[in-house]
Amino acid sequence: MKEILKGHIIHAPALGELNITENGYMVLEDGVIAGIYDQLPAEHGDGVLHDYGDKLILQSFADMHLHAPQYPMLGMGMDLPLLDWLSTYTFPTEARFADPVYAREIYARLARELITNGTTRVCMFSSLHTDATLVLMEELEKAGVTGYVGKVNMDRNGAEGILQETTAESVAETERWLAACHFKDLKPILTPRFTPSCTNELMAELGKLKEKYGLYVQSHLSESHAEIAWVRELHPDCERYWETYDKYGLWDDHTVMAHCVHSDAVERRAMAEHNVLAVHCGDSNINISSGVCPVRQLLNEGVWVALGSDIAGGAQLPMYRVITTTIRASKVRQIMDNWQTPFLTVPEGYYLGTTAGHKYFGAGDGFSTGDALHAIVVDDSTFPTPARPLTVNERFERAIYLMEQRNIAAVWSAGRCVVQQ
Amino acid sequence: MKEILKGHIIHAPALGELNITENGYMVLEDGVIAGIYDQLPAEHGDGVLHDYGDKLILQSFADMHLHAPQYPMLGMGMDLPLLDWLSTYTFPTEARFADPVYAREIYARLARELITNGTTRVCMFSSLHTDATLVLMEELEKAGVTGYVGKVNMDRNGAEGILQETTAESVAETERWLAACHFKDLKPILTPRFTPSCTNELMAELGKLKEKYGLYVQSHLSESHAEIAWVRELHPDCERYWETYDKYGLWDDHTVMAHCVHSDAVERRAMAEHNVLAVHCGDSNINISSGVCPVRQLLNEGVWVALGSDIAGGAQLPMYRVITTTIRASKVRQIMDNWQTPFLTVPEGYYLGTTAGHKYFGAGDGFSTGDALHAIVVDDSTFPTPARPLTVNERFERAIYLMEQRNIAAVWSAGRCVVQQ
Repeated sequence: MKEILKGHIIHAPALGELNITENGYMVLEDGVIAGIYDQLPAEHGDGVLHDYGDKLILQSFADMHLHAPQYPMLGMGMDLPLLDWLSTYTFPTEARFADPVYAREIYARLARELITNGTTRVCMFSSLHTDATLVLMEELEKAGVTGYVGKVNMDRNGAEGILQETTAESVAETERWLAACHFKDLKPILTPRFTPSCTNELMAELGKLKEKYGLYVQSHLSESHAEIAWVRELHPDCERYWETYDKYGLWDDHTVMAHCVHSDAVERRAMAEHNVLAVHCGDSNINISSGVCPVRQLLNEGVWVALGSDIAGGAQLPMYRVITTTIRASKVRQIMDNWQTPFLTVPEGYYLGTTAGHKYFGAGDGFSTGDALHAIVVDDSTFPTPARPLTVNERFERAIYLMEQRNIAAVWSAGRCVVQQ
Repeated sequence: MKEILKGHIIHAPALGELNITENGYMVLEDGVIAGIYDQLPAEHGDGVLHDYGDKLILQSFADMHLHAPQYPMLGMGMDLPLLDWLSTYTFPTEARFADPVYAREIYARLARELITNGTTRVCMFSSLHTDATLVLMEELEKAGVTGYVGKVNMDRNGAEGILQETTAESVAETERWLAACHFKDLKPILTPRFTPSCTNELMAELGKLKEKYGLYVQSHLSESHAEIAWVRELHPDCERYWETYDKYGLWDDHTVMAHCVHSDAVERRAMAEHNVLAVHCGDSNINISSGVCPVRQLLNEGVWVALGSDIAGGAQLPMYRVITTTIRASKVRQIMDNWQTPFLTVPEGYYLGTTAGHKYFGAGDGFSTGDALHAIVVDDSTFPTPARPLTVNERFERAIYLMEQRNIAAVWSAGRCVVQQ
């Protein structure tokens, strides 16, 4: 089936590069991008036209780190120290997902909120509950959200009796979950919560599962000073945090590490060398007062960086807010560096919140020929009347800052239009 | 006329203090608070009941620094250096307000967006145009927004030919404007844009107008290092920025100074001693990369601090977002101070965004007997179902983080219900 999207097409093929086709045409063959044109070539005149008029056609967003079972506690407990926050809110909330009925209600809503806000790809933590994780994947699939979801592994330092597995349970439940994963655009990813949550035995078993099933891995890295000190105590043989994953074969191409706020030069080099994805979660880092990640430095050193909402350490699910928060955090970093470090521009923030994440799933650079379409259509006609006509580039920048869910007129995910307002 | 508001009543009588009356009753006599009660006293049984059920009744917000004519450029030019931003966006946009028809369209919309987002009191910059300033005041009054509005004075370093007055014009137009101000809940405030925008002659004239009409003054102070250096060049006789206002009698009780990011100990003491209001604009300071204001330090030293959206340096008009941005900025400050400075808590942020600003207009501490009611009613029933029933305090904190315009079910301003969804 041939479809044509008409509108102002804006994508980011590389960091800081913005490609704009005004009043352009994007041709899809069975949901896959066949080309972008100024004028519709005659041979495509037979396609079904989606005429978005004066609207902006942007890449959809990829949220590369978030905790689905923390959605019900969004915006809560933000004044508490990290450990009290975990014991008062996080662990009791995640424990509720032992109940698949509760999970269904929350996850249906989360999936809906993700997709209507333009997030079509995720790399997501579930809780340690196998059944709720499958419910989560079902609801994401129903809504049109694609990507990777992980049943959490945690056999120590959780909340005994309500949120902790034995090592054997953790392995067996992971196997049961993997066997039950039959989704089209949602895949399982191994998810040791973080080093302090997993015994060495469990880590070793996860390393074996990774090998056995050819899985990717996601976890947390160097988020706060206290956490780094704790990991050092737990693994006196490892000089740095990343080695505690590497030791068990979990530090590999496409391993996803959230935060990396305090990674030193050696750890950063280990990321770049192994094609590890560092997921920057600016809102969360500030809410928890962890630190301000030197994103520019990571990028300059060749580390692959994308963005995550990290709800509920982050309090904002929509990725357009995460992008502007990322830009603001980079300006804070600039101030902290005595104005020596350039901040992230809007096109750079857009790239990190879109292309950099989409590439995790095998996508090309921006809207790339041969890729299934992941896009949003933005209606900016309700923004305040500007003092003069704006260029499409200016409209794009303003949309990134001012967009709300109601401005997202359509969402395309994996080649299908899944939201149409 | 006697009216009764029923709901969960939450106000901040002092910094960090939260007063909650669950399922309480607030009695109004002709829009003025007569009392707050757990049970409705028998003698008030004859009042008109506004039963808000399980909703939250909060103080409305006071936005103590914003530029009305920059509303059309909200979220634009954020990647530009300050001087380019001024010449490309700010000055041409403000210049458009020479046209009262354009002003009417924009200001009607701005007033509506302010009030529906719960901002009932403002201390606001207009442009230098007298007629557009009167249009702004009319539209604010129509919508139910109260407070102070200032026609800007600027006789140098503006944009010649499109946005600059002569000294004589500036004085004459200010007199014309003052003579035309006949509004009930909107008052004029003298508004030299900032020291670099006003010749010494103009400053001296403004000092005389202040005396003659008994007016308050608003301006900018110590926002960025470059600006401070510029002011020092312009006023070699003044050791510090604040003295350039003091020299002309403009540094006085209730003088409003936006930013104060880089004020040193002497300047901070001058604020505290003269009861000058320092308006913290966290979003703007970060967007423009000016610095991170040491708000905790100002508060500890007895400086009167309130909050401003500072659109369009700030890119967020709703004050609930400004409050959470303020909290985040305070956490950044904590990080910058090597975790030695406590961040601002949610009740503290709420106080700064409400009571601290309302006091500028003569209001008491929180919902205070004898004050005309300024309040919003928040419907949080559409937030995600929490893992357990929440306390009203928890619901309050979550509302501050997650509120959107659609959650504001009603707005009361100066004793009248002006928005009812």
